[in-house]
Amino acid sequence: MISSARAVLLRQRPAKFPTPHDFELVEQRLPVLGPGQVLVRNLWMSVDPFMRARMYGVSGYIGPFNLGEPMLGGAIGAVVESQAAAYSPGDLVASMFGWREAFVGDERSLTGLPHGDVPIEAHLGVLGMPGFTAYGGMKRIGEPKAGETVFVSGAAGAVGSIACQIAKIEGCRVVGAAGSDEKCDWLRSIGIDSAINYRTCGDLTQALRAAALEAANPFARFVECGMIAGVTAALPLSAPTNLLNVVRRRIKMQGYISFDFADLQGRFETDMARWIGEGRIQWQQTVEYGIENAAAAFLQLFAGANLGKMLVKLA
Amino acid sequence: MISSARAVLLRQRPAKFPTPHDFELVEQRLPVLGPGQVLVRNLWMSVDPFMRARMYGVSGYIGPFNLGEPMLGGAIGAVVESQAAAYSPGDLVASMFGWREAFVGDERSLTGLPHGDVPIEAHLGVLGMPGFTAYGGMKRIGEPKAGETVFVSGAAGAVGSIACQIAKIEGCRVVGAAGSDEKCDWLRSIGIDSAINYRTCGDLTQALRAAALEAANPFARFVECGMIAGVTAALPLSAPTNLLNVVRRRIKMQGYISFDFADLQGRFETDMARWIGEGRIQWQQTVEYGIENAAAAFLQLFAGANLGKMLVKLA
Repeated sequence: MISSARAVLLRQRPAKFPTPHDFELVEQRLPVLGPGQVLVRNLWMSVDPFMRARMYGVSGYIGPFNLGEPMLGGAIGAVVESQAAAYSPGDLVASMFGWREAFVGDERSLTGLPHGDVPIEAHLGVLGMPGFTAYGGMKRIGEPKAGETVFVSGAAGAVGSIACQIAKIEGCRVVGAAGSDEKCDWLRSIGIDSAINYRTCGDLTQALRAAALEAANPFARFVECGMIAGVTAALPLSAPTNLLNVVRRRIKMQGYISFDFADLQGRFETDMARWIGEGRIQWQQTVEYGIENAAAAFLQLFAGANLGKMLVKLA
Repeated sequence: MISSARAVLLRQRPAKFPTPHDFELVEQRLPVLGPGQVLVRNLWMSVDPFMRARMYGVSGYIGPFNLGEPMLGGAIGAVVESQAAAYSPGDLVASMFGWREAFVGDERSLTGLPHGDVPIEAHLGVLGMPGFTAYGGMKRIGEPKAGETVFVSGAAGAVGSIACQIAKIEGCRVVGAAGSDEKCDWLRSIGIDSAINYRTCGDLTQALRAAALEAANPFARFVECGMIAGVTAALPLSAPTNLLNVVRRRIKMQGYISFDFADLQGRFETDMARWIGEGRIQWQQTVEYGIENAAAAFLQLFAGANLGKMLVKLA
């Protein structure tokens, strides 16, 4: 049995941009299982951009992380020991206990996962929160219609790449912006109509950034999620001077977080499983190994080092 | 019979802000009526902020006004002579032929108006485009729910004052901002919960302006129409640095123009007539007299000289 496990704690709140010094890797004793509890050994941990917002002491989507406690986030693991009727050793579960090699949790805080055709870690990406974020935003805010042009920023990331492909499934022309030629090549290889490397495209970048509002067609929808760069006041914030276009072009700009659309979860699971089965949704992942590299993997997100979903594989 | 009539033409496009020199008052011969045509003598003309956008040579909501042609806008008149089956002398009609004392128009370009309990000029205000703009924006974008707080800028204007009262009818707490104590007093007198004079309230102004996004509750809706100050690049444009809140607070910001919601017209007419009959909607108008004062009335709009709908009364 496992009696202790390593975890990554939030040691201090970032002064400006997060650095490795803000994290601490510690070994923690695991409690003895009580009734209804399960001991889980994590196999995969998710590092997500939204977690950065919770490192600061300000109220964001949800409250900030507590100092001295583990970085909370999605993980997938296997049940090692169970005092709960619903789980047996070997069962696969998703949890939100975050960056820990193992943990003891109440059965109600876990989601059982199938042993299926799809690699289990997809439940942290295309079949998990990032996929659902893309799905909910496109369905509820973007409402793409066949023949429309859809522009996706961060197009090679975990959310953006799924958003691009949902727009293609809906019959749209899709233009994606990503930060490397490799990412753009991949986007083209999965059928995205046009991929722009925003780091090297020169004037076009400038033009696109400046003209995001200018380039919008009448009744355009801006589906706003993430915008992580703006979370800390230490970073420069964009200040568009062309908001008038919101009226002139009848633009809808709407922010959301995936769980705003919780009622779509069932449709998402059905649609995404079918699309994956039909080969209409592709995905990539970028993997770091070992809990000792979780913080580094997380920080790499903000340098755009990931193609698709950034994951940490344990054990 | 009338053989000629005065009209106000667009003499030149404004260099920056419109001035009296951009307009020209001329006497024009009226054509002889053809089949299906009607000669109308205008009784009331509307001057509306949106008309400013059309004075410039840029494409706005709809195309720009033509140089040397009358300023187009809403007007209400009485039929003087008719070659059309649908209209007889004395009938009241609404038109969009703009700033003219009289005109000859096709019957299909006119809307017949009832001789009713409501002063006829209300069809240029509460029962016309401004009222419908308030109604459509609140119904389709704002969707106010009982108990919510609604903030309305330009609250004493033709659109804002109706928006405030629709929000009250929906059971909301309403805070309005207007540019004079007189306007604020009027707002309070018709039941608006809190009225702020944005010209004199000092720090609060600063705070409200800076904090419009900051003050929004989660899932706030920003119903954006007008924003006329931004139409000409000669005027300073606001550049909010806190757009991140769109995501963090899940804000919806949506621009519109009244005719986007044309399908609501029937419901609007029914609801507004009922609300007026029940005494739940009040309105004000500011009236200038004579076509020679139309341009001045129009320019006064941008100084905030009007309480409620700004109108020009003819004859």
